[in-house]
Amino acid sequence: MAISEFDVIERYFRRGRPLRDDVVLGVGDDAALLQVPANHQLVATVDTLIAGRHFPQHTAAFDVAYKALAVSLSDLAAMGADPAWATLALTLPEADESWLKAFAEGFFQLAKRYRVDLVGGDTTRGPLSVTLQLLGLVEEGKAMRRAGARPGQKIFVTGTLGDAAYALREVSSGNEADPDLLRRLNRPEPRLEFALALAGTAAAAIDISDGLLADLGHIVAASRCGALLWVDRLPRAPALTAKASEEVLDCQLLGGDDYEL
Amino acid sequence: MAISEFDVIERYFRRGRPLRDDVVLGVGDDAALLQVPANHQLVATVDTLIAGRHFPQHTAAFDVAYKALAVSLSDLAAMGADPAWATLALTLPEADESWLKAFAEGFFQLAKRYRVDLVGGDTTRGPLSVTLQLLGLVEEGKAMRRAGARPGQKIFVTGTLGDAAYALREVSSGNEADPDLLRRLNRPEPRLEFALALAGTAAAAIDISDGLLADLGHIVAASRCGALLWVDRLPRAPALTAKASEEVLDCQLLGGDDYEL
Repeated sequence: MAISEFDVIERYFRRGRPLRDDVVLGVGDDAALLQVPANHQLVATVDTLIAGRHFPQHTAAFDVAYKALAVSLSDLAAMGADPAWATLALTLPEADESWLKAFAEGFFQLAKRYRVDLVGGDTTRGPLSVTLQLLGLVEEGKAMRRAGARPGQKIFVTGTLGDAAYALREVSSGNEADPDLLRRLNRPEPRLEFALALAGTAAAAIDISDGLLADLGHIVAASRCGALLWVDRLPRAPALTAKASEEVLDCQLLGGDDYEL
Repeated sequence: MAISEFDVIERYFRRGRPLRDDVVLGVGDDAALLQVPANHQLVATVDTLIAGRHFPQHTAAFDVAYKALAVSLSDLAAMGADPAWATLALTLPEADESWLKAFAEGFFQLAKRYRVDLVGGDTTRGPLSVTLQLLGLVEEGKAMRRAGARPGQKIFVTGTLGDAAYALREVSSGNEADPDLLRRLNRPEPRLEFALALAGTAAAAIDISDGLLADLGHIVAASRCGALLWVDRLPRAPALTAKASEEVLDCQLLGGDDYEL
């Protein structure tokens, strides 16, 4: 790399004092040292986003970082956990400083909002990919699992479905996507406030990343029960109300990238 | 991929019941749920290994997995922490089942030895790379940091240096490397037993991944002191005693991949 790994970390990813006082030691030693509060369990998730597969090539660096963190925040939301600490493994074709600056801005904007400290990382050279591990905390016994669903319970979603998938279709076909839908693709909003309010109440939860059918399928399989959906009642974004019903439904059921619960 | 991501996870990375009873929920939900014992701090590290950069292309799958875990175990050793849980982000050009089988064997052989449970992961398609995040536990106040060194203290290393770097030179030049040296390159042994015995005793520690000079440099910088080395007293492997002194010294001081403390 043009600038060394240590310089990259120093310059873009070390942000003065940590936000949280449970970070005993952050970036800069062999490993981070973290204080888990009493009566809490640790929740851990990891996701890799690869350019051209999980986001369009040439997605803005800000959005790549934002999405990488949002996707992991959504996993914690699905468990009813409060996010706390992240580590970031970033593979870059080159140490492009303006790209890194925008990436760091995207990351820290969302991290700050949810009080997540970046406590470790690794930067390597190669085709662009982002692996984010996120650690969160949940009160003992409060985590929402996939296996808790029972016959007779109602199924809810926290927002409109299919928006991101529809935007991706438009972008991939070279069309201009509706800005509201495109924002759902590039800057998904993790449903953390919703999830934290639900924890201890909902019987089971999952976040919709692979599409409603696939992810509901995971709940159904883990809970050993069935599910009945009224597909015409799925929440639909205003920008999609006038679109061909079959195409929209396809995005809503199979599209993925919704990050609703 | 030829077989779906879910199948890969099921088939190769889910190994019945967890080894540890602090794994409340392992692979298979949105995130893992883990129980941190009282009076302990959490230690977190992440490393990415990329084919052709961090290990030679065509390294056996068993060794790739072994090394990925060993490198992270070594980071925990440098903190005096006991390893507990890992997440694995694996990017593969194709879902080659015999490769995956050997990879899983290498991973679980070492994981079992150190009682590490794989609690989460993500598999994606792309050029071969392995990102491993490892979580460990250390009693409050017992972690070894880089910043604890003071003038007048002695500097120790836990084993011979330069072995892996010398082997890599041989392999890269198309020569046959000494099997003992090659094993140090492909299957480094994290100094965990040593580290756990040292925790609370050593003033500072680091693991030597970038070469003695670079890594001692990190301790010196963090501790704001100097260091004096007798380079002719550095431990040297039997296979290196008869080799040209200058070349060996180069490997010992600058080579890296030693994973001694």
